[in-house]
Amino acid sequence: MGWAIAIHCGAGEIPRTLPPERTEPRLEGLHHCLQIGVKALRAKLPPLDVVELVVRELENSPFFNAGRGSVLTSKGTVEMDACIMDGNTKNCGAVSGLSTVVNAVSLARLVMEKTPHIYLAFDGAEAFAREQGVETVDASYFITPDNVERLKQTKEAANEIQPIQQDFLQEIPTANGDSQIGTVGCVAVDSQGNLAAATSTGGLVNKMLGRIGDTPIIGAGTYANHLCAVSATGIGEAIVKATVARDVAALMEYKGLSLKEAAAYVIHECVPKDNAGLVAVSATGEVTIQYNTIGMFRACETEDGYSEIGIWPSSSLENYRFENS
Amino acid sequence: MGWAIAIHCGAGEIPRTLPPERTEPRLEGLHHCLQIGVKALRAKLPPLDVVELVVRELENSPFFNAGRGSVLTSKGTVEMDACIMDGNTKNCGAVSGLSTVVNAVSLARLVMEKTPHIYLAFDGAEAFAREQGVETVDASYFITPDNVERLKQTKEAANEIQPIQQDFLQEIPTANGDSQIGTVGCVAVDSQGNLAAATSTGGLVNKMLGRIGDTPIIGAGTYANHLCAVSATGIGEAIVKATVARDVAALMEYKGLSLKEAAAYVIHECVPKDNAGLVAVSATGEVTIQYNTIGMFRACETEDGYSEIGIWPSSSLENYRFENS
Repeated sequence: MGWAIAIHCGAGEIPRTLPPERTEPRLEGLHHCLQIGVKALRAKLPPLDVVELVVRELENSPFFNAGRGSVLTSKGTVEMDACIMDGNTKNCGAVSGLSTVVNAVSLARLVMEKTPHIYLAFDGAEAFAREQGVETVDASYFITPDNVERLKQTKEAANEIQPIQQDFLQEIPTANGDSQIGTVGCVAVDSQGNLAAATSTGGLVNKMLGRIGDTPIIGAGTYANHLCAVSATGIGEAIVKATVARDVAALMEYKGLSLKEAAAYVIHECVPKDNAGLVAVSATGEVTIQYNTIGMFRACETEDGYSEIGIWPSSSLENYRFENS
Repeated sequence: MGWAIAIHCGAGEIPRTLPPERTEPRLEGLHHCLQIGVKALRAKLPPLDVVELVVRELENSPFFNAGRGSVLTSKGTVEMDACIMDGNTKNCGAVSGLSTVVNAVSLARLVMEKTPHIYLAFDGAEAFAREQGVETVDASYFITPDNVERLKQTKEAANEIQPIQQDFLQEIPTANGDSQIGTVGCVAVDSQGNLAAATSTGGLVNKMLGRIGDTPIIGAGTYANHLCAVSATGIGEAIVKATVARDVAALMEYKGLSLKEAAAYVIHECVPKDNAGLVAVSATGEVTIQYNTIGMFRACETEDGYSEIGIWPSSSLENYRFENS
């Protein structure tokens, strides 16, 4: 039993042909953020502080779909969501529809700690941000040239399509082969078994105004209790329907599965293929990374010396899939 | 195995001294809506249509905290949430922060059926309502004199309080002994085992602008799958933390509990006392009503002839509590 941390920055149709200029900044960002998290855990910071710290760093990077670098709505605007949850108390905070707050995850934590509520959205959340004095900027700060181009390509490709929910994945084309990736999340556990999870996102490219996905939904994109902490990523609508993060914990709690068994079951049996991935840690310091997409940007490290940074399946993951296919 | 339907319109600190002018319109409303639902099930309408129909009626009544009659935010405005979910497909729709839409539950259904998304909120949801041509009215339609008075009393009582999440229930005083009650919900199953759930609310009196509670959160206030349909009510923040509606289904799915066992466990073991209630039906036509508050306005009927309308525990419920205490 020791500390463990895992980070993701999105799962999806990440082609193996994705050029290095798109993969390398993300891998470097993952490496940088992992080191920040590991250092914080070694310094005995509470996991709740660790996941907030790591997600803030990921939000500040323009290479991920959260904070600066968030994908754009159909109107070319940003509407950011975030969530944070503490395992021991199940206290949690969430925000949706932010357009000027630099670090959505920290506002989610303030909702948890400074209000009688769990979840604030849109104008009310923005007003709360001002009341709390958190850093805000002009909405243009969040918009990168990459995301302007990504929206343009997505709109062109979607032009003649009338998407319906059932065939959602097939009908929202990707631009640059990576328009759906980039939601960020972090889970951490310390050597006393204290757990926390946090997730932050700009959502889905070309989303309708007002659309909320899985990230800020307790039990869908984010969840932590006394057994485990989970952060999910992928097609938000599929993750919400499958209550992915809560189900990992529920399978441990109600069916006695291990962290890895529970996470693998949820990702491979309960969510449509190519829709989702997650990172999770348990109170006993286990870590698991599961996804049913082509790839997932992720990193993890444990006190006993295991670490991993990657995009596509490693041979051990491929073995796992083979054993279970 | 036959059809079954259950309706609630809020659980909370409902004093047995509540005067008849406050109880009777609600009991009459429950009776009226139950008859509408029963007639629809007998006419073989799909449960998804039945729960929408019933919740629309409840929203149209000024005696419940949903649609007309919604409680007011700290600024004296209305911000309404609703959710609907189909058990077989787990397709679902949700809306938050509506201020002009007469029937929030029907807009939630349109989000489910006419968009690639599950959940739209605030301005984006209002824009979608206009695009779809649903009935909208001036926000003043929703505001009743009772709720203006309720907000005034709540603000006066809360004046010197700095509420924090952990002690939420104790620190938000009730006005008229019933300020927290009134969220409405309906669950139904037909004789083929098709299930659906819907919930609608104005939220919590004196809530912060932008606050979202459990009602529109899939797995918290509303959930349906192939085993059961659940609609919860009470202190939204407690219901979100306990993922109440999904946990009822998860206990059936992962631990093999019956509907009643699962619902009773969640309400009596997983949520703080005085915080929550729920109605639920199973695919085999069972119905259960569970609450850990003083009372819950509820009604139910099954094809085999059982029906119930009430506010406080019946002797059989008291027996249940005794057996399990």
